[in-house]
Amino acid sequence: MADLVVVGSVALDSVKTPFGKVTEALGGSATYFSYAASFFTQVRVVGAVGNDFPREHLELLSSRGVDVTALEVLPGQKTFRWTGEYGFDLNEARTLDVQLNAFAAFKPKLGPVHRKAGFLFLANIDPVLQLEVLEQMERPALIALDTMNFWIEGKRADLLRVLARVDVLLINDAEARMLAREPNLIKAARTIGEMGPRTVVIKRGEYGALLVSSGQFFFAPAYPLEAVFDPTGAGDTFAGGFMGYLAQQDATDPASLRRAMVRGAAMASFTVEDFSLERLKRLERRELEERLLTFADMVRLEG
Amino acid sequence: MADLVVVGSVALDSVKTPFGKVTEALGGSATYFSYAASFFTQVRVVGAVGNDFPREHLELLSSRGVDVTALEVLPGQKTFRWTGEYGFDLNEARTLDVQLNAFAAFKPKLGPVHRKAGFLFLANIDPVLQLEVLEQMERPALIALDTMNFWIEGKRADLLRVLARVDVLLINDAEARMLAREPNLIKAARTIGEMGPRTVVIKRGEYGALLVSSGQFFFAPAYPLEAVFDPTGAGDTFAGGFMGYLAQQDATDPASLRRAMVRGAAMASFTVEDFSLERLKRLERRELEERLLTFADMVRLEG
Repeated sequence: MADLVVVGSVALDSVKTPFGKVTEALGGSATYFSYAASFFTQVRVVGAVGNDFPREHLELLSSRGVDVTALEVLPGQKTFRWTGEYGFDLNEARTLDVQLNAFAAFKPKLGPVHRKAGFLFLANIDPVLQLEVLEQMERPALIALDTMNFWIEGKRADLLRVLARVDVLLINDAEARMLAREPNLIKAARTIGEMGPRTVVIKRGEYGALLVSSGQFFFAPAYPLEAVFDPTGAGDTFAGGFMGYLAQQDATDPASLRRAMVRGAAMASFTVEDFSLERLKRLERRELEERLLTFADMVRLEG
Repeated sequence: MADLVVVGSVALDSVKTPFGKVTEALGGSATYFSYAASFFTQVRVVGAVGNDFPREHLELLSSRGVDVTALEVLPGQKTFRWTGEYGFDLNEARTLDVQLNAFAAFKPKLGPVHRKAGFLFLANIDPVLQLEVLEQMERPALIALDTMNFWIEGKRADLLRVLARVDVLLINDAEARMLAREPNLIKAARTIGEMGPRTVVIKRGEYGALLVSSGQFFFAPAYPLEAVFDPTGAGDTFAGGFMGYLAQQDATDPASLRRAMVRGAAMASFTVEDFSLERLKRLERRELEERLLTFADMVRLEG
C-alpha cells in the first residue's frame, strides 16, 4: 500500500438541482477525492481553507483517516466558495459564482512525508499551483491530473507545462475536445497523449468512462441509477476511487488501471445519490463490494 | 440456425453530413438490417418499393443471400425517400423530407415460408403495418421491434398494441424517455418493460448500448472510431447484427442476448464509417472477427 497525496480545493458549495438544494455544504475537489480514496489507502490533503471553515468538516475527513495536516487554515481568509445549478440535463453544471478566497493566496509547501508519497493527484485547480506541488515531490510512481475549461482557456501554457510531466489525465469529454482542439474524442485522446500523459481517462457522466492507454481502450459503464440527485463531485469521487485503488495496490500496470476504473465508477455512483458527501458518509464497505459485483456483471460476456 | 423475417423500409436516402453527401443512395431500415443480418443467418425482407427502384440494389441484397421474394415492386409507385442532414453532433439527424410513396399503399401478405420463421424484426415503420405482419406469423421464438418519435407521438395507441406482443424493444435513449414519459433512463426502461417487452435495448449512438432484461443490465460500448462519416442506418445495422446472431444461434437466453449486443455494436461500427451501405459492402468476415475481439478486450477486467 502506497501513500496518496492530493492538492485541490476544499470548499463550501451552494448547489441547486431539480431535486433540491444545499447552501454552503462541504464540497471541493480534494474533499470528494480524499473521502473516496480513504476507502482504499492513506491519503493526505494539501490545500487551504479560511478560518470560517467548520471544524466538523475537518473532523469528518480525519475520522476517515485522511491526513489534513497540510490543509492549511489561513487566518483572516475565507474558504473557497462555489455556487452552481443543474437543469434536468444533469450532465452540465451552470456556475453562478466562484470566490477563490483562501486559494488566491495559497502557496503549497509540502513536508517530508508528503514529498515521499508514491501517488499524486493534482485535482482541478490553477495549473500553476499544480506545478508547484508536483515540483516538490521526490519520485512518485504515478502522477494524475484533472482540469477544466476555465484553465484550458485561461491558462493553456501553464497547463501544457504541467501536462508534459503527468502520467494520467482525467478529464470530461467536452474538455478533452477543447484541450485537443479536435471534435472526435478518440483522436482527441491520442492528441492529448502526445502532450504528455500516456493514459487518458475520459469521464462521460451518465455514459461511463473511457480509458485510453498506449493505444488500448477500456470502457467502464456508469452504474444504472434510478435517481440522481446531484452530480457535483462525481468526477472527483471517480478520481478518488481510481487513484485510491492504484495506491492501495501500489500498481500502475494495465490490468490495475482497468480495475481502478471500475472502483472510480462505483464510488462516483454513490456520490450522485445525494447532495454534498451525504451518501458517501452513509456508505458501507459491503455496499461498495455489492456494486463492484454489479459492475463486473454489467460487462460480462461469458457464463 | 433459424430464419429471420424483417418488415421495414427499403428506401432511397439523400444525406448530408459535415464530411460529404449522397443523393438517392440505397437506404431504409430493412435494407441495413437485412444486409447486416446476412452475415449470420437466412434473412427474408417483407416490404415494398416502387418500380423506380434500381435493380442493382435488389441484386446486392440477393448476392448476400437475402430473400427478397416478399419485397414487392409496386407498379406505378415510387420508392420511399428520406432526406436528412447531420451537424457536427452526429448523434441527431434533422429530417428535411419524407416521401412514403410505395409504403403508403403497402399491405403486407406473408407466404408460408415467412410465416414459419423463428425470429421476427419489426423495423421502424407504421405500427399498424408492424401489427399486420406480426399477426400473420405462426409462432416465432422471438419478436423484436424498433420505433421512433414520429410513431410514439402520432400513433401511440397502435404502437402500444404491438408493443404488448413483442419480446424485445430496440430504441434510442431520447425515444425511450418519450415513450415512457420518464426522464430517468433506467426508470424508463422499467416502465417500457411493463408495456410488454421483457427486454429493452437502449441505443445511445457513440455512447454504446444498454440491455435491460428482467432486472439485469448489460452494457456494450461503441467501438472507438477515429472517423464517423454518416450515422444513418447505425441503429438498423445494430438490430441486424443483434437479431441475426440470435437467429443463427436459435437462442434467446440471457448469455446469447449479451453476445448479440456485441455483434450489433460491431456491425453498426462499420456502417458509420462510410455513406449508405458502402462500408458494409467492403466488409470481410476477418474484419468483423477482429472487431469482436477488440470489443471483448474493451470490457475485459481480468488477465
